[in-house]
Amino acid sequence: MTLVLGLDVGGTSSRALITTLDGARAGFGRAGAGNPVSVPLADAVASVADAVRAALSGLDPSEVRSAVMGIAGTGRFADPVVAAAFGQAFAGLGLTVPVRPVGDVLVAYAAGTAEPSGSVLISGTGAIAARIDAGEMTGTADGIGWLLGDLGSGFWLGREAAALTARELYTRVPQGRLTRSVATTVLGTIPAAPSRQAADDLIGALHAEPPRHLSRLAPLVTDAAAHGDPQALALVDRAAAHLTECLAEVHTDGPVVLAGSVLTTSAPVRDALIKLLADRLPGTAISVAGPGETGAARLAARLVT
Amino acid sequence: MTLVLGLDVGGTSSRALITTLDGARAGFGRAGAGNPVSVPLADAVASVADAVRAALSGLDPSEVRSAVMGIAGTGRFADPVVAAAFGQAFAGLGLTVPVRPVGDVLVAYAAGTAEPSGSVLISGTGAIAARIDAGEMTGTADGIGWLLGDLGSGFWLGREAAALTARELYTRVPQGRLTRSVATTVLGTIPAAPSRQAADDLIGALHAEPPRHLSRLAPLVTDAAAHGDPQALALVDRAAAHLTECLAEVHTDGPVVLAGSVLTTSAPVRDALIKLLADRLPGTAISVAGPGETGAARLAARLVT
Repeated sequence: MTLVLGLDVGGTSSRALITTLDGARAGFGRAGAGNPVSVPLADAVASVADAVRAALSGLDPSEVRSAVMGIAGTGRFADPVVAAAFGQAFAGLGLTVPVRPVGDVLVAYAAGTAEPSGSVLISGTGAIAARIDAGEMTGTADGIGWLLGDLGSGFWLGREAAALTARELYTRVPQGRLTRSVATTVLGTIPAAPSRQAADDLIGALHAEPPRHLSRLAPLVTDAAAHGDPQALALVDRAAAHLTECLAEVHTDGPVVLAGSVLTTSAPVRDALIKLLADRLPGTAISVAGPGETGAARLAARLVT
Repeated sequence: MTLVLGLDVGGTSSRALITTLDGARAGFGRAGAGNPVSVPLADAVASVADAVRAALSGLDPSEVRSAVMGIAGTGRFADPVVAAAFGQAFAGLGLTVPVRPVGDVLVAYAAGTAEPSGSVLISGTGAIAARIDAGEMTGTADGIGWLLGDLGSGFWLGREAAALTARELYTRVPQGRLTRSVATTVLGTIPAAPSRQAADDLIGALHAEPPRHLSRLAPLVTDAAAHGDPQALALVDRAAAHLTECLAEVHTDGPVVLAGSVLTTSAPVRDALIKLLADRLPGTAISVAGPGETGAARLAARLVT
């Protein structure tokens, strides 16, 4: 039997999928954060190894003929210490082929289409669009991080929701589903009366945590929009407009793949975006990416042939 | 002789002005950061005391009949430790009246007009508009901090300039005065060729410093706009539009005072704003605030009568 291994390694979890060459699932494993940007190298390696070990359960590791690890920041693997730490762990599990690190953007694209050329739009904690030509990334838009950009990302949705709530707290007790849920999540309560102090408490609490944590408020926007909250719907429309502009900067032809936690889990944002894209890029095939490990396994299978 | 003391205490400098009741200058002193939010309490008190000591040079401190200290975050003075530390230092200089802490927004307003009711628009590192009625602040707009708002502030100008530059670096060597100066300031050089790496270096350098430091790039926008750079002029127009919206949220009648480092030192932003305000609020008297210590001395003089 010829098997391939696809890994999706991130700052929250590591997932390993083993398939046959035609994509049939043969094994799966999941463990904690595996990106050495997010956690210490030894912990990252241990998590990735745990995921692969679970996926290999009952399988012969020498039958894995190709392996791809999707990860943000592949440049880290130019560091021989990083490359050796992962390499030793994989060899220790009985793998006989090298595991190739591939950027998470290319993997996301492959998780949504088998076409070699097209575009991918990712909105997760950050936001980026990329043009893929013959399997290579040839251009990007946005992806410049929460401080400077990432418009329409989970961070952006969370920040805009927090800003709306802070502005309201000065002048009135929040009434909408979105601003009430943000106040409750951040302050633990909805203030009984509007005040500068209530707003300053909210702002202070958000400044006290890492800014990217604002993305934890994005699901509140999704929930409120799904319940018809007008402020949340307006935010969703603005996010979709930003993401449409971002994609339009790079897209030329071929399919468009939508990926990232916002576009895969927030139906309101995804639906608003698809509507805008239908107007802006009529006739374009749009698909939603499957799990990253599926994209990585597909890329690994292509490398065998 | 009846004298009054006005202090402008900030996170960068402390300035003390002594005037007669009708505003004639009698003494001035300047020292380092005096806001205990920015520096340790003992250092803050020492700076403020140094400024007052210099201002009192050759004067009789007992002739000072009223004193106002303009400072952001007057709530700190509810802490008896903070109040006592400043009180002891002032007493040690021979002052026989208490020094009243007054919010920097009220002081900025007083530094621009003698009218008891009107509005003030401040764009410095942050941005806020406030409604003043009979000397009291009765409403605000924005002022929610760099993470959530402060649209049109020095931080905002710096961030937008950095974002423009990061986006350019991916695809072309910056040609404009603004993006070239941002690249030079942040990277020390203008990359010879466009690359994702050059953009990532810029983004990484900016993420490595406190976000508010982006306001140091605001003067580059002013300089480039003054030289006709189209990207800088577009940013200036967007800043002016944000600030106009911010002011319009609170303004009802009376004069409008413009304050803060952006509006007092950036002629392009100030001119663009005044043009928009002339359309939006026709017939409104617009003035630019003088130094904060002048506003504080005016408030102190009013408290005597």
